[in-house]
Amino acid sequence: MTETGTAAWGVTAQSLASIRAGIRDVPDYPEPGILFKDITPLLADPQAFRATVDAFAGMCTELGADKILGLEARGFIMGAPAAVLAGAGFIPVRKAGKLPRTTFSQAYQLEYGTAELEMHEDAIAPGERVLIVDDVLATGGTVEASTELVRKAGGELAGVAVLMELTALGGRRRLTSSLPGVPVSSLLTF
Amino acid sequence: MTETGTAAWGVTAQSLASIRAGIRDVPDYPEPGILFKDITPLLADPQAFRATVDAFAGMCTELGADKILGLEARGFIMGAPAAVLAGAGFIPVRKAGKLPRTTFSQAYQLEYGTAELEMHEDAIAPGERVLIVDDVLATGGTVEASTELVRKAGGELAGVAVLMELTALGGRRRLTSSLPGVPVSSLLTF
Repeated sequence: MTETGTAAWGVTAQSLASIRAGIRDVPDYPEPGILFKDITPLLADPQAFRATVDAFAGMCTELGADKILGLEARGFIMGAPAAVLAGAGFIPVRKAGKLPRTTFSQAYQLEYGTAELEMHEDAIAPGERVLIVDDVLATGGTVEASTELVRKAGGELAGVAVLMELTALGGRRRLTSSLPGVPVSSLLTF
Repeated sequence: MTETGTAAWGVTAQSLASIRAGIRDVPDYPEPGILFKDITPLLADPQAFRATVDAFAGMCTELGADKILGLEARGFIMGAPAAVLAGAGFIPVRKAGKLPRTTFSQAYQLEYGTAELEMHEDAIAPGERVLIVDDVLATGGTVEASTELVRKAGGELAGVAVLMELTALGGRRRLTSSLPGVPVSSLLTF
């Protein structure tokens, strides 16, 4: 969903402008040639942060999701408040070795090598509907790994919602191909 | 503040019981002899999670805090929703190398060696009041490092609020000694 299609999010053009204004370009981070999108000014602006989280919460309600899954660490900042506002449960998906009980694990590709995401085995009851929330959709690798964790637990994927979609990196194409029929929504596109 | 003194948090005894029920003991994690307090069942329970976050938000309002500072990563899950509900800004404090712009940095002691916490230099305007929110108060090392970051930025420390205080580890004694007059509040004590 592009910015022209955000009506379903219930976000006013004014709120959308303030959300966009809260994202700052940082050149050459984390390495030369990368233009990093810094969300910390957005988090510091109570109205813009609230509008962002309201949008995710509205999506959760609209899709009938029982739980929001957030990816460590910026996904926690977006997903946990959205879960609270929507009255949904919150599921933290963490990097390997951070969760204390038995987990499902899923590898994903890094630029060099692989890493793993983990989720507690009892985080999702069979049939529960789960909305994945994150800050950025880039190549789609970590989101796709999260969808595998939902599948392993027997959950139903209600959708994927992100603050920013970096369209040149092809994440949407990858997700709509591997997850036909699952809505993938972004509040802003770059 | 012990559970007998939670009136100021505005939490009912029933909510407090449901919050406590959402914390599960995991023996021998992350190493033999440690009894880990797992908060993921609490996060999965929308009413109990909401009551937790409402308590933090109420504390933020009561203390007149402009911003809530949350520590990576579980402090994000507690602090970000509280900031949204209180209408305050949210400041992420992260492990070294995760924030893209110029940061203040503060070392803290680990069992073996030290680690560093970082915060963007412009995260706090001089004189802004900041409430630190985290999941656990144990020895108080990371919270104390965060208070140093607030001081370096010229902010005013409004208070420290945690979900759980592990009283045997002496964090409260350490903080009330280094931060005389600053309220340190815990929703639950173990």
